[in-house]
Amino acid sequence: MKTPEQSRLRLIASCPERIGIVARVATFLAERGASITEANQYHDPSSQTFFMRSDFLIDDDGETLTRLQEEFKPIGDDLQMDWQLTDANRRQRVVLLVSKFDHCLAYLLHRRKVGDLAFDVPCVISNHEDLRSLVEWYGIPYHYVPVPKDPEGKQAALEKTAELIDEAEPDTIVLARYMQIFPPWLCERYRHRVINIHHSFLPSFVGAKPYHQAEERGVKLIGATCHYVTEELDAGPIIEQDVARIGHSDTIKDMIRLGKDVENAVISRGFRYHLEGRVIVHGNKTILFSK
Amino acid sequence: MKTPEQSRLRLIASCPERIGIVARVATFLAERGASITEANQYHDPSSQTFFMRSDFLIDDDGETLTRLQEEFKPIGDDLQMDWQLTDANRRQRVVLLVSKFDHCLAYLLHRRKVGDLAFDVPCVISNHEDLRSLVEWYGIPYHYVPVPKDPEGKQAALEKTAELIDEAEPDTIVLARYMQIFPPWLCERYRHRVINIHHSFLPSFVGAKPYHQAEERGVKLIGATCHYVTEELDAGPIIEQDVARIGHSDTIKDMIRLGKDVENAVISRGFRYHLEGRVIVHGNKTILFSK
Amino acid sequence: MKTPEQSRLRLIASCPERIGIVARVATFLAERGASITEANQYHDPSSQTFFMRSDFLIDDDGETLTRLQEEFKPIGDDLQMDWQLTDANRRQRVVLLVSKFDHCLAYLLHRRKVGDLAFDVPCVISNHEDLRSLVEWYGIPYHYVPVPKDPEGKQAALEKTAELIDEAEPDTIVLARYMQIFPPWLCERYRHRVINIHHSFLPSFVGAKPYHQAEERGVKLIGATCHYVTEELDAGPIIEQDVARIGHSDTIKDMIRLGKDVENAVISRGFRYHLEGRVIVHGNKTILFSK
Amino acid sequence: MKTPEQSRLRLIASCPERIGIVARVATFLAERGASITEANQYHDPSSQTFFMRSDFLIDDDGETLTRLQEEFKPIGDDLQMDWQLTDANRRQRVVLLVSKFDHCLAYLLHRRKVGDLAFDVPCVISNHEDLRSLVEWYGIPYHYVPVPKDPEGKQAALEKTAELIDEAEPDTIVLARYMQIFPPWLCERYRHRVINIHHSFLPSFVGAKPYHQAEERGVKLIGATCHYVTEELDAGPIIEQDVARIGHSDTIKDMIRLGKDVENAVISRGFRYHLEGRVIVHGNKTILFSK
Repeated sequence: MKTPEQSRLRLIASCPERIGIVARVATFLAERGASITEANQYHDPSSQTFFMRSDFLIDDDGETLTRLQEEFKPIGDDLQMDWQLTDANRRQRVVLLVSKFDHCLAYLLHRRKVGDLAFDVPCVISNHEDLRSLVEWYGIPYHYVPVPKDPEGKQAALEKTAELIDEAEPDTIVLARYMQIFPPWLCERYRHRVINIHHSFLPSFVGAKPYHQAEERGVKLIGATCHYVTEELDAGPIIEQDVARIGHSDTIKDMIRLGKDVENAVISRGFRYHLEGRVIVHGNKTILFSK
Repeated sequence: MKTPEQSRLRLIASCPERIGIVARVATFLAERGASITEANQYHDPSSQTFFMRSDFLIDDDGETLTRLQEEFKPIGDDLQMDWQLTDANRRQRVVLLVSKFDHCLAYLLHRRKVGDLAFDVPCVISNHEDLRSLVEWYGIPYHYVPVPKDPEGKQAALEKTAELIDEAEPDTIVLARYMQIFPPWLCERYRHRVINIHHSFLPSFVGAKPYHQAEERGVKLIGATCHYVTEELDAGPIIEQDVARIGHSDTIKDMIRLGKDVENAVISRGFRYHLEGRVIVHGNKTILFSK
Repeated sequence: MKTPEQSRLRLIASCPERIGIVARVATFLAERGASITEANQYHDPSSQTFFMRSDFLIDDDGETLTRLQEEFKPIGDDLQMDWQLTDANRRQRVVLLVSKFDHCLAYLLHRRKVGDLAFDVPCVISNHEDLRSLVEWYGIPYHYVPVPKDPEGKQAALEKTAELIDEAEPDTIVLARYMQIFPPWLCERYRHRVINIHHSFLPSFVGAKPYHQAEERGVKLIGATCHYVTEELDAGPIIEQDVARIGHSDTIKDMIRLGKDVENAVISRGFRYHLEGRVIVHGNKTILFSK
Repeated sequence: MKTPEQSRLRLIASCPERIGIVARVATFLAERGASITEANQYHDPSSQTFFMRSDFLIDDDGETLTRLQEEFKPIGDDLQMDWQLTDANRRQRVVLLVSKFDHCLAYLLHRRKVGDLAFDVPCVISNHEDLRSLVEWYGIPYHYVPVPKDPEGKQAALEKTAELIDEAEPDTIVLARYMQIFPPWLCERYRHRVINIHHSFLPSFVGAKPYHQAEERGVKLIGATCHYVTEELDAGPIIEQDVARIGHSDTIKDMIRLGKDVENAVISRGFRYHLEGRVIVHGNKTILFSK
């Protein structure tokens, strides 16, 4: 399969529908010796938009990716494409934000350590000190930025947080149970690059204390939702969701415990889809080219 | 197991918590030769309420159930119990209400015919003529009561519907995709005896066209909820829920198709729990003593 | 989207991996004005085989499909392809074989009638008379071919069955709980066109009475498997599987009842994948291009 | 609910069916002021065996449990009961055995640390050194007992392992991916107290390399099974099972990764059921009184 001289590259693109998109892209790749390993195309009939994702192997002299990006530009322009051509094996830089609950963080760092998820973590930022030892055990810098309740203090804290994020130059930010509203100006700066895990089956139980809301309503399933953060609370494009069964004797404490497994499953799948370039945001929804 | 002279009876009860409830009930049963086959007890700590359900076999001279009901009364009074002592093998009379979608109706009637669900159907009532031939093929009377849009006509239609229901003397009413609001006065008359299937994972997507709402929001799972009907739309005590996975290319037509299987699974389980006396309503929630 | 003059065609293909397959196929399609609506490509690294499926819209003068088939032939030959170019909207002819259990048959015929599954049924063949009235209610011919236990009688019955199948000129044969071994010579004649539903999570509980085997072993989940029939019993390429939870108090009768829903779900999905050309058999496995 | 002077005790019992079992037990408890919080009874019709589990609160002078055990003995004898009367809040001593895969171990130790699972770990025993640092980070002693391949060395290693287990005086032993056959004489010594997690949906894929077996067969779901260890490999009473969906492009490496979440979910639930006394072994099956 992949030989030492080869790289695995990835093209993700969307554009207005017209005849011949795949032909042009595939011909471009074939002419350069690319061998497609996995690809998907989808035409959304309501918006007349075409989406595609191609993974391919190609001989790499070290300049191949840059050269392909330059050479593809005229095609992308002509087809009015939003496109990204990347090294599929490049590890993204991911900043993790947490508060006190450690399960999502512990899960992601453990899975990263054993090689199940490939990404780099320049730092973890938290509004609490609680998880410092866990994070530092993994050799990752931990920034403690307390968020006061008064508006000025809060604003200053969020600006400090933003500064730390900017310095880390992340590809992606994961709110791994960060119990603070992510400010609109940061959403805009990192559009479609901030992933949140919310512990309910959205759109049910938006906002604070979803398990308490679930207990109040008497639902028979609890859920978790992984979504891109937007200006509107818990309303961004959904990447992945799942549920777990509960019974009448399950207390909120039980829900919190059972919910951890669902949250981990959902963030794990959703975050992996994101890292592998399988998610394309389209309006307030996502196109998901799963394996 | 059950001999020809035996009946299978069932006691369902709830009462304020105190010491010795199970002892008194179980002693009462043992003194009369009852053999418990399945039983559950649960103490809800927040309301200090005790719930129990017992199935038992007992020799039956034809008067046994009536005699036990009389003899248990002083115990029930003393323990301030809500209780029901019934013949577990008695088939409930169930009136089904439908509109145009036939899947829940077809599922329940088929499962009844092959013996998977045991209940009698005095009649089916519909605001459309569409499903008459299906229902009559099963030898069940079909009443067509169109529901006009004008308030007076609507009120008359609902009164006619109520009259037909009353005449049928049902134990339970199932709204098997009946696309009309069930009036409050009927809810009250048949409190905790009217079961609805709603095609969303409540409390998401209350009211009309839940699949359109789901499509709009871009959820990754669709759901169905079986609940008791109350005065507030789609807000009654939930009996059972489940979900099914959808993808970005699934249209509303696909959701409707995929949803049928979830709706059938949910109504099938929820309705069975109800028929087997496994559901006890407690406030706006249900205690569910599943197998 | 699809205009009246357009047809939706479908190309399914597999061939030895080489550079430029997608480019050649997509260029072929683009030159003829085809608009791709959904496509998938997958390269299996262990066998170095390339698999693809493309749905596309194209102006149709009535000869378009035939012309495309002729014009594509040289490309297919050159790439050493197994390929099929078909009208995606053509309804397959499907012969259903059943014994006494009616749930899969009833499910498929009901879903067909309401338009959820599109296929034609030239006839149903059974070794019992039980389901005649159900099948004839749908206006479908029912052939009763009893299968005696003596070898000669059995052989004659299977030849009669084969004759009826051949006469029906089916695209696909579905064993919807047909409790007879499908003879090897018929497997060969209809290679990868005979679908069976087995009521276990294969490879567990091959052969007769899987629910009894499950009860004996004390499993906590029962399952169902939809697979292509081959000469080896219950060992053909698996298309789809699923499971349902059971408890210690569930009897074999309960398993049979609960299993019906799983069997229906599995045959429904598996059969649909087959009808939509989403399944490519590869050795003893299947490539499944699901939506 | 529970007051400071109260203890939560638990009675688990099975005995031949006869009339009045619940009455005698419940009366015994009521006479001593016990308040039942959760209870289940089940009568297995095929073996005519009665099973019960009761959690109750009772005023505790420090001698209460011992006194109740003595006082209950005559009842237990008379009813030919297998019974256990225990402090529901006593933490079991659990020895964990592992090899190289760390996910089950990491999951259980993390869940224990944050209070989601209550048990004590006198030591972890492994045939490899790999997981020492993880275990010691949690402050738990780690014993490295390499298991050579030659019969004599192997026997000596297993005897050393048994010795370490005996010294730890465990209530329960968990094989958290311990890739060695547990010897029959140890199975007998710790009958129904050794829990294994096997990474397949048993009885499919018994023994070594189940994911390789799954890949070979082309199944569409992989599974995990939590069971009590007996003399026969992977054939003991099943406590819990679950599955996860895989696709044609998932490699064995993907299965291993995806399987970790299923294995963790299954060991988590199965082990919790065991700790909470919800599992009663009956022949080669389990009665499971889940919440």
